Amino acid sequence: MQFDLNTARPVLASTPAAVEALVGELPADWTEVNEGPGTWTVHEVVAHLIHGERADWIPRVRHLIEFGASRPFPPFDRTFGFAEARERPLGELTREFVRCRAASLEALASLHLTNEDLAREGRHPEFGVVQLSQHLATWVVHDLTHLSQIARIMAVQYRQAVGPWSAYLRIVRPIT
Amino acid sequence: MQFDLNTARPVLASTPAAVEALVGELPADWTEVNEGPGTWTVHEVVAHLIHGERADWIPRVRHLIEFGASRPFPPFDRTFGFAEARERPLGELTREFVRCRAASLEALASLHLTNEDLAREGRHPEFGVVQLSQHLATWVVHDLTHLSQIARIMAVQYRQAVGPWSAYLRIVRPIT
Repeated sequence: MQFDLNTARPVLASTPAAVEALVGELPADWTEVNEGPGTWTVHEVVAHLIHGERADWIPRVRHLIEFGASRPFPPFDRTFGFAEARERPLGELTREFVRCRAASLEALASLHLTNEDLAREGRHPEFGVVQLSQHLATWVVHDLTHLSQIARIMAVQYRQAVGPWSAYLRIVRPIT
Repeated sequence: MQFDLNTARPVLASTPAAVEALVGELPADWTEVNEGPGTWTVHEVVAHLIHGERADWIPRVRHLIEFGASRPFPPFDRTFGFAEARERPLGELTREFVRCRAASLEALASLHLTNEDLAREGRHPEFGVVQLSQHLATWVVHDLTHLSQIARIMAVQYRQAVGPWSAYLRIVRPIT
């Protein structure tokens, strides 16, 4: 599927509500555990999603529109704010993610991007020249990959509990 | 984590709302497409989840309590009702899944299962002897694996659109 603002926007509008519905009220048994050393908890994933709204998605759209490919995007710290976020209840973070996303979508609408704009080029610090449409498509997929990660973090907690059903449940098996 | 009704129940209560929030209002570009030949659409996944409420989770709990390991569970048809479900709007199906799950959780509560009950044995047609706790843990993980599948079905539609970011987004790459 080609990137299109009209099909992308409804996904960006629904994923934060899905994250909130899924984990906003869960006990810590599910949300303060991870998949092993060097992996994230659900709580940390949500902190990362909030930071993306503040420092990545719309800020990089603006950067690209202002500087084109002449200046690379500032780097993005994937674990920024984790220590602070750990002190706050997860339900507070999921609500903040919903609010931040609503603000991001308002900001996106206010840019009145055209199809020509979507082909505009920016510079990624690692990939080099990228298109605005690729950045925006990545925003959508980034939501989905972290939603999938949240489901997996929870599922692996029951790796033993499901007994023989693990044969049918790839999600509980370690990523190879 | 060991299976426990008090930690499992909140997940079973939240996943249908998460599915509804995620896909209940999305355009068909996301929900009537699959990952390739022999894979499911989002619409079909939701139909499968509804059928699980009707024919698998609580019915097998009751079967196990009635027959123990003396009689295997009746087989479960993973694609039952797909043709009929395709005729109905997805938002209707997600709402039905929420309702069916609420009824399942009421039925579960009415059984007043004890820790001793959780160790009771039944017979799976393929795996042989299984415990009730394993069946219930599988209910939880089954929700999570299909939520993850829904996210993946959507993400792979943007496999090309994300351009070079696919290097960081394992979710858009074909499952090996």
